[in-house]
Amino acid sequence: MTAAEPAGPASPPPCSDAGLLAPGRAGSPAEAATGDAAFLGALLDAEAALTRAQASLGLAPAAAADAVTAAADPARFDVRALALRARDGGNPVIPLVADLGAAVGPEHAPHVHRGATSQDLMDTAAMLVAARTLDLVLADLARTEGALAGLARAHRDTVMPGRTLTQHAVPTTFGLKAAGWRSLVLDARDRLRRVRDALPVQLGGAAGTAAAFTAYGATDTGALVEAYARELGLAAPVLPWHTLRTPVADLAGALALTAGALGKTAVDVLTLSRTEIRELSEGTGGGSSAMPHKANPVRATLIAAAARRAPHLAATLYASLPAEDERPAGAWHAEWEPLRDLLRLAGGAARDAAELTGGLRVHADAMRAHLDLTHGLIVSERLSAELAPVLGRARARELLTRAARRATEEDRPLVELLAQEPELKETDLAGLTDPARYTGSAGDLTDRALERR
Amino acid sequence: MTAAEPAGPASPPPCSDAGLLAPGRAGSPAEAATGDAAFLGALLDAEAALTRAQASLGLAPAAAADAVTAAADPARFDVRALALRARDGGNPVIPLVADLGAAVGPEHAPHVHRGATSQDLMDTAAMLVAARTLDLVLADLARTEGALAGLARAHRDTVMPGRTLTQHAVPTTFGLKAAGWRSLVLDARDRLRRVRDALPVQLGGAAGTAAAFTAYGATDTGALVEAYARELGLAAPVLPWHTLRTPVADLAGALALTAGALGKTAVDVLTLSRTEIRELSEGTGGGSSAMPHKANPVRATLIAAAARRAPHLAATLYASLPAEDERPAGAWHAEWEPLRDLLRLAGGAARDAAELTGGLRVHADAMRAHLDLTHGLIVSERLSAELAPVLGRARARELLTRAARRATEEDRPLVELLAQEPELKETDLAGLTDPARYTGSAGDLTDRALERR
Amino acid sequence: MTAAEPAGPASPPPCSDAGLLAPGRAGSPAEAATGDAAFLGALLDAEAALTRAQASLGLAPAAAADAVTAAADPARFDVRALALRARDGGNPVIPLVADLGAAVGPEHAPHVHRGATSQDLMDTAAMLVAARTLDLVLADLARTEGALAGLARAHRDTVMPGRTLTQHAVPTTFGLKAAGWRSLVLDARDRLRRVRDALPVQLGGAAGTAAAFTAYGATDTGALVEAYARELGLAAPVLPWHTLRTPVADLAGALALTAGALGKTAVDVLTLSRTEIRELSEGTGGGSSAMPHKANPVRATLIAAAARRAPHLAATLYASLPAEDERPAGAWHAEWEPLRDLLRLAGGAARDAAELTGGLRVHADAMRAHLDLTHGLIVSERLSAELAPVLGRARARELLTRAARRATEEDRPLVELLAQEPELKETDLAGLTDPARYTGSAGDLTDRALERR
Amino acid sequence: MTAAEPAGPASPPPCSDAGLLAPGRAGSPAEAATGDAAFLGALLDAEAALTRAQASLGLAPAAAADAVTAAADPARFDVRALALRARDGGNPVIPLVADLGAAVGPEHAPHVHRGATSQDLMDTAAMLVAARTLDLVLADLARTEGALAGLARAHRDTVMPGRTLTQHAVPTTFGLKAAGWRSLVLDARDRLRRVRDALPVQLGGAAGTAAAFTAYGATDTGALVEAYARELGLAAPVLPWHTLRTPVADLAGALALTAGALGKTAVDVLTLSRTEIRELSEGTGGGSSAMPHKANPVRATLIAAAARRAPHLAATLYASLPAEDERPAGAWHAEWEPLRDLLRLAGGAARDAAELTGGLRVHADAMRAHLDLTHGLIVSERLSAELAPVLGRARARELLTRAARRATEEDRPLVELLAQEPELKETDLAGLTDPARYTGSAGDLTDRALERR
Repeated sequence: MTAAEPAGPASPPPCSDAGLLAPGRAGSPAEAATGDAAFLGALLDAEAALTRAQASLGLAPAAAADAVTAAADPARFDVRALALRARDGGNPVIPLVADLGAAVGPEHAPHVHRGATSQDLMDTAAMLVAARTLDLVLADLARTEGALAGLARAHRDTVMPGRTLTQHAVPTTFGLKAAGWRSLVLDARDRLRRVRDALPVQLGGAAGTAAAFTAYGATDTGALVEAYARELGLAAPVLPWHTLRTPVADLAGALALTAGALGKTAVDVLTLSRTEIRELSEGTGGGSSAMPHKANPVRATLIAAAARRAPHLAATLYASLPAEDERPAGAWHAEWEPLRDLLRLAGGAARDAAELTGGLRVHADAMRAHLDLTHGLIVSERLSAELAPVLGRARARELLTRAARRATEEDRPLVELLAQEPELKETDLAGLTDPARYTGSAGDLTDRALERR
Repeated sequence: MTAAEPAGPASPPPCSDAGLLAPGRAGSPAEAATGDAAFLGALLDAEAALTRAQASLGLAPAAAADAVTAAADPARFDVRALALRARDGGNPVIPLVADLGAAVGPEHAPHVHRGATSQDLMDTAAMLVAARTLDLVLADLARTEGALAGLARAHRDTVMPGRTLTQHAVPTTFGLKAAGWRSLVLDARDRLRRVRDALPVQLGGAAGTAAAFTAYGATDTGALVEAYARELGLAAPVLPWHTLRTPVADLAGALALTAGALGKTAVDVLTLSRTEIRELSEGTGGGSSAMPHKANPVRATLIAAAARRAPHLAATLYASLPAEDERPAGAWHAEWEPLRDLLRLAGGAARDAAELTGGLRVHADAMRAHLDLTHGLIVSERLSAELAPVLGRARARELLTRAARRATEEDRPLVELLAQEPELKETDLAGLTDPARYTGSAGDLTDRALERR
Repeated sequence: MTAAEPAGPASPPPCSDAGLLAPGRAGSPAEAATGDAAFLGALLDAEAALTRAQASLGLAPAAAADAVTAAADPARFDVRALALRARDGGNPVIPLVADLGAAVGPEHAPHVHRGATSQDLMDTAAMLVAARTLDLVLADLARTEGALAGLARAHRDTVMPGRTLTQHAVPTTFGLKAAGWRSLVLDARDRLRRVRDALPVQLGGAAGTAAAFTAYGATDTGALVEAYARELGLAAPVLPWHTLRTPVADLAGALALTAGALGKTAVDVLTLSRTEIRELSEGTGGGSSAMPHKANPVRATLIAAAARRAPHLAATLYASLPAEDERPAGAWHAEWEPLRDLLRLAGGAARDAAELTGGLRVHADAMRAHLDLTHGLIVSERLSAELAPVLGRARARELLTRAARRATEEDRPLVELLAQEPELKETDLAGLTDPARYTGSAGDLTDRALERR
Repeated sequence: MTAAEPAGPASPPPCSDAGLLAPGRAGSPAEAATGDAAFLGALLDAEAALTRAQASLGLAPAAAADAVTAAADPARFDVRALALRARDGGNPVIPLVADLGAAVGPEHAPHVHRGATSQDLMDTAAMLVAARTLDLVLADLARTEGALAGLARAHRDTVMPGRTLTQHAVPTTFGLKAAGWRSLVLDARDRLRRVRDALPVQLGGAAGTAAAFTAYGATDTGALVEAYARELGLAAPVLPWHTLRTPVADLAGALALTAGALGKTAVDVLTLSRTEIRELSEGTGGGSSAMPHKANPVRATLIAAAARRAPHLAATLYASLPAEDERPAGAWHAEWEPLRDLLRLAGGAARDAAELTGGLRVHADAMRAHLDLTHGLIVSERLSAELAPVLGRARARELLTRAARRATEEDRPLVELLAQEPELKETDLAGLTDPARYTGSAGDLTDRALERR
């Protein structure tokens, strides 16, 4: 292939990836929005927007803007060939500009990429891809949030064991748990929105001084940046950020938080789906042909896997902040794939979370039954508090410790043993030991949490 | 030592760390604010605030609040013994409560830690430590920002080579570079402030339902949380966040960004301090007794080291977001030291950045001299742009390519070679090839960036 | 303090850490071996060994070697003051050499640190500390391995549910599980031993050419390195490795594997200790004063926490491999604390693993009881395999699918439902559906695994 | 698509990646060996090997083995459809087995995947892919090592400045530097070989007990594992390692070390290629159309980028060691893509390192010239050592300090200033101050390092 004749899309190279190792993202909106085709499209959108922005300021003929816009059709470019030719200069913009120039012809070619540097386009395309993907992620977070709000409301008073360090502690409600999951989803949403709204175009030229734009006639390069940003629906930055990578770091943090926030729901579902616990189950568990009884929590598994990977990818991006000079040799290049992977992991997890929470089955009977597993000791904290005024602190402690030991050893309900104590004749033991009546402020907390929109 | 007789501080245990491996933080404000003594103090502040908050709502006698507040003196507790006794239950709050109860005596002991869980105190103390440390970090960032604003202003028009992928590209100014460094410091400041203002107390009891507080008589646990937050100057959260770790993740992101943002300045200073470049030098370089000529950029080195570590620590914290149940077995415990380390690294780096930028020496003459290293080719981009209209695009390219090759091979200035071309007789070659006149919008960008406060 | 009068140890500075946030390592052998005091001791050992090695080759007077060895007493040095003075040059060796020189007096001072560079000592001390700590870790791994071998042998035929993706799959044995845990411990042991045996001294002088040693009279610097290594019981490297960091990377990998290997046991113990499962429990669970029924798996929790942190610290060390020049500005400094932290985390986890496995209680009755939780479907894989030849593949599948559904829906044992099928009259259904008889090669595998020493 | 009719390869889905963001690996041998097609091929190879292994032990008809082997042709399967169908059960083996069964027809279908679990195949395929890729990586390391040996030999005595903390310290040689780079390559080679030779097959059935194989008639499942391993050229493990992930962790460590080891060469080349230093340059630098003078060190840049990412991916894999139960819900799934990415990064870096070192240009004249940049102070360490016996230690120090200051301030050679000192009349100052004569053991060290094969 020569630069003058951009080829159409080739047959899939043997090296291409189509998601075989990535069930968490396969078929998700975020996947389609982050593939090589999407990146190529964003690069071309950015090139066309640049020429249009220049035309809007009289720095290029309108015909050139039209020609570049028309030529910027991903179907006309060969992604694999661009990938291979990217090796010469270290990025795919260099061969892409050659092909785009060839596509528009010699008259307009001088107005392709005029004054810009490769990084201007790569960064702008990455922000475009991020913006488009975040919109999709936010939509799946909205579905997830809605499903969780429904669960929290429906199970506001569904009592279940509260567990700490794997052990039953005191009762809680599934409503409060679901409200907590939802609050994390809202935290993720708020952070993603904030970052998304600030995603900037990049336009600084070879060393961030915008000098070439001035050499080509621009008198106000700030106006050019603003026009460029308007064309693409992104923000206009105060400074070129070739080596001021706050936008990428902000994405890293918000996406890692998103994956982790969804991961909280996932690890709870995994725990509560265990064969011995089965307080929750996924709507459609993954089956096993040889073991028909298995209903694997596949959605939760895939979300959990994403949450395990995301922090490391975010760290890679944070580690690129110390980028030397006006463009670094390595720190920038190390960002490209991790940023895409993070977008995909968060996007895939959001899709799976929407499916998971939308279909989650809650087994309130199992929750209720488990409250008795500790023979009533799950309310021992309450008894300590409420019997002390009745019996005196020391006596209450002594009596409870003995009863707790007997309940466990003799496999008998605590309430039965306490009922034998003459000192407690007047006490409403049935009420005090009813786990369903020891949920504290769980209901109020759920209500308050649901007020957040 | 028994729980009834808390000892005074012991002599330093052989295992204690005093900063021998940490010159980046030794003696910094952040170090003192994050040591074991500071954590112990914060834990005691939190315990005392809890009793006072309960007293303010009539849930505890005022005398108990006074007694706990008086007893909550770090000097009365043995950090090392607490550390060792923490092994039984997995955290230091359990033995601390025992000692604090012993210190206040049997009358008030029941009002120590009443209704709370260990994590309520650990998390609140961590937020207190974070808040106190961030205030110190912000002060050093303010010093740094001020120094950089001064440098940007003073060197608004100091021309130097812009470098990309280690090679001279086009000219830039040191003012723009310093303005860029400053904008990262302001980005860090804005994120730290936002996170700092939202740092919440933790108060949820055993499983986050606040049930024990109700068992002890509280009717509005939300009011208790608010009173507690007021006592400590922290925010009151909507929900207990034992396993909703957004506050920790937000700290992780903001601190990693801070370390990385300062790291950008550091790597630039390291590069520009090289023996061959020497465009910058630290005010007081670290010497070597055997090699008197060495002036090591030690401040930049220590900042760069912090920036290398911070992303990994942040990742550890993001990875704790998927915390199972109402309190996790491991994910929470894994946060404590990394959060402290991150605070220290960011705090140490901010201190070093203030010193570095406050004393930085700028060698404008070296910058100017380096602009000639490429025989004038550093302005070749401009010549391409400006000679095309004069000579035609193809002819301009041909002429420039030849002249560039000759300039390099014959070690002669480009301007001299171009002057031999008859076609360029009328052209202001001296002006076109003066690097100082090809800084594009660097000055304007610097001015705009300095408008940000 | 002046360089001429090294002070004794000061009272603990307020910034020092004594393990308050680190119950996983507090009081462990590895903690004592890695504290600032231990590092100071190793630095002094290295300095003394260097002078002795030079004396052994006639490069220094024997009296100087004796004097330095006598003066190299950690009790005579002030760790905190060294930490603070380390800020000037960026490492603590520079002030330490000054103090050590003052301690030996003017006659012998010239033979302190002669020809060496700070990194020679820091790296050698780090390797000494690593070697000493690894010996302790290996001892705790040996205890752990022994306990696990005992468990595997004792429970070779203790049947329990095998679980995949949180669901019961087919039966396994606790013996095989314990044997698997042990094999990971042996993997860790083998890798730690290999790394430990190769830990090298560092001795290269200012830029790794050993030039200063030659200037001071050495004719064979290789012999000097070997003598130095002999003095310290470490290996002699072919090349100085100031920027060839394989020894540190190898430590990173082996220690991360160790923490992760122990983490596998921990997460299994955490799962199997859950209130609903309770197939295992720690010998001494961490209690809760307010909730007497709680027996938290604290050892497993602390190991799990260590396993969460170790990979990030190892990554920090791997990231220091690309160390520029003859000594890098930051990459080296970033290694010190993470390497120590890794040693501590692995050492603390090994201590906790020895305690955990030594006291682990196995509830074989609970394991057996859980095999019935799926109404016998836990052996459905076997029935698929063995009924196909009897009934034909399609018929077997149909029959089993129906029976499985009924067993779940009607809450009846699978064997009971199958017994109603006339086609299976001749089949030994009791045998085929007994989980205890469907453990495959679990016993043989356990035996084979135990043969590994 | 139905299971009965496996489709041929489809046209490239819009989501597929063809390397657009990955110039570091595009077109490399490792890329082709790790693509989805390669993984699909390895999965099919593993399935066929399993049936053949069973046939070799009389557990399956030879005809079935032949049929499966014939059907296991990647061209007959649709990777994208497998990726999408993998979402149901969480891995692609489930739909693959369905398609493979359909492809061999009803007679032989029962012998496809018989007794195995999905993870048996996924893990075995991953090890096959790793083995094949490591062979390619080792070949590129061999090329790299050879080139470096040549450079070390050729430049054994090429003197250049040794640099520490960015500053000239004492002289070294380029030969020693190249020998150091080579020793890291050999370290990587040794670790990769050791890991490669131990890569095991996976075969344990649903819960690692090999029970289904016994249900289908195997009496010695160990023999089956060995036959399977023989078919594939991999090692036979003692235990199934579904949750004993040492092989993956070992790959992580060796690959992270490889990327980091090559990264050391890269960062040195980047530094020494700087416009101001230009002691090295890449054979074919990446150009810039607008800036003809630029010769970017692209190979070094891409290697450096890989070295930045690898530690984080390795950490992801180490973090999967604590895998709960007999197969974990997430930890395993989180390994797939990071392991592939690591193989690609190391493979791409090895390819680039072979190109870089094969074409590296060494500018010995620039190295020599830079030795004078410090006016001779680069040998001050030597003068301190050698003048002390002549003048006395105090006098030597005083004289040198003064001369050093004057040399810097007056911009004069140190030797000229020292020559004015009457005390040094007899001293061979020209010899003592010649940097080329102060390279210590650099030559010997280079020779010794080259002896390693």
